Amino acid sequence: MATQNIYDDPDFFENYSRLPRSRDGLSAAPEWPSLRALMPDLSGRRVVDLGCGYGWFCRFAREQGAKRVLGLDVSERMLARAADMTSDPGITYRRADLERLDLGPEQFDFAYSSLALHYIENLPGLLAEVHRALVPGSTFVFSVEHPIVTAPIPAGWSHGSDGRKAWPVNSYQKEGSRRTNWLAEGVIKQHRTLGTTLNLLIRLGFTIAHVEEWAPTDEQIAAHPEWAEERERPMFLLIAAVR
Amino acid sequence: MATQNIYDDPDFFENYSRLPRSRDGLSAAPEWPSLRALMPDLSGRRVVDLGCGYGWFCRFAREQGAKRVLGLDVSERMLARAADMTSDPGITYRRADLERLDLGPEQFDFAYSSLALHYIENLPGLLAEVHRALVPGSTFVFSVEHPIVTAPIPAGWSHGSDGRKAWPVNSYQKEGSRRTNWLAEGVIKQHRTLGTTLNLLIRLGFTIAHVEEWAPTDEQIAAHPEWAEERERPMFLLIAAVR
Repeated sequence: MATQNIYDDPDFFENYSRLPRSRDGLSAAPEWPSLRALMPDLSGRRVVDLGCGYGWFCRFAREQGAKRVLGLDVSERMLARAADMTSDPGITYRRADLERLDLGPEQFDFAYSSLALHYIENLPGLLAEVHRALVPGSTFVFSVEHPIVTAPIPAGWSHGSDGRKAWPVNSYQKEGSRRTNWLAEGVIKQHRTLGTTLNLLIRLGFTIAHVEEWAPTDEQIAAHPEWAEERERPMFLLIAAVR
Repeated sequence: MATQNIYDDPDFFENYSRLPRSRDGLSAAPEWPSLRALMPDLSGRRVVDLGCGYGWFCRFAREQGAKRVLGLDVSERMLARAADMTSDPGITYRRADLERLDLGPEQFDFAYSSLALHYIENLPGLLAEVHRALVPGSTFVFSVEHPIVTAPIPAGWSHGSDGRKAWPVNSYQKEGSRRTNWLAEGVIKQHRTLGTTLNLLIRLGFTIAHVEEWAPTDEQIAAHPEWAEERERPMFLLIAAVR
């Protein structure tokens, strides 16, 4: 089975590079303040970023005093762009297939992943490797698309007779591939229930520290009224787990 | 604020008493095998059941060797029926408002609640009391309606152009009362996100041991084809947490 690397598709990459969060970094991602709040002090830590993209988080971690940062991504284009944006010797960018990762035991004090794990088929294998790679007591913070978003076939908003938007959910218990047309045709994501993700972490020995079904704040909706629909159903799932 | 006690409404009680799970007990509840699987050995334990209804679980716990069982419910009718069904001196039924419960510290080795907590407004207070009432290391297993079910205003299935059923979700982030017409007019339930429930438990000091978004098994659907729709969206949320 070949790992889909949609990020090296020229059309996808072109569209992705125009997203605010690609162009302007962490502060352009509305869920960033919530993710940030789940993190420990990064000062002196060895950090790994699974699916680092342009490396915005890697550079942030160094600004926060991380001792060294390893940014992993399957996309050569993303890594090339990330490498262009820093000359910091404390950051290493490396091409890696998260479906078959080998980090070595107890090499890191903090693991991070933003909106990457919903592409991974072998999530049990990846989470086991993250657990192995973390020092006991350290934290793994990650975000994925919420399973309410990934479940439906097809996915999309509906409008009630009163004009009110709703997000029709079906196929929730049918885990596996979902073909979407986000930024390009035929992007494959993996749907799994919230229970499955949490129980995988628990069985590996992680302690669940926080589960956030992210929604925009009142202030964010005041600044971006078009985000209000994201309160109708949770868009992202943010999890903090302690090794 | 008065606690709604819909179970003492004559129409509701009449309809409730005809449900298979009321008439025939635990084995008539399709989620029971999954709940059962989350429980420790009950032998010798002091057990509390929050919202015991007809007392099916209290009697089960005694059959499993529980030392003593306290069944709590706000409904006098339910408790009268429960008392009629046993003469076991190891079971105590007591009328209690779960909105303002006082159990005393470290009195129990296992706590259980089936489909009761989604009626409770002061869930933080109740969970704090359960935590206080449990001996360290003991388990709390409970079920509630899944927030995907409780969120929408109004709630109900939709049918796509292909005839496929879906469950339109809106208002997910709007926590609070939902008025439904389940078995009687104007039953009030409390919607809260899955994240809210889990984070309440975590902040109190519980460790999340298992999260199950219950769906019928293949065997159950073979026996009850009408249950197949319960795979389109999760119906119940089952949680095991360790004090």
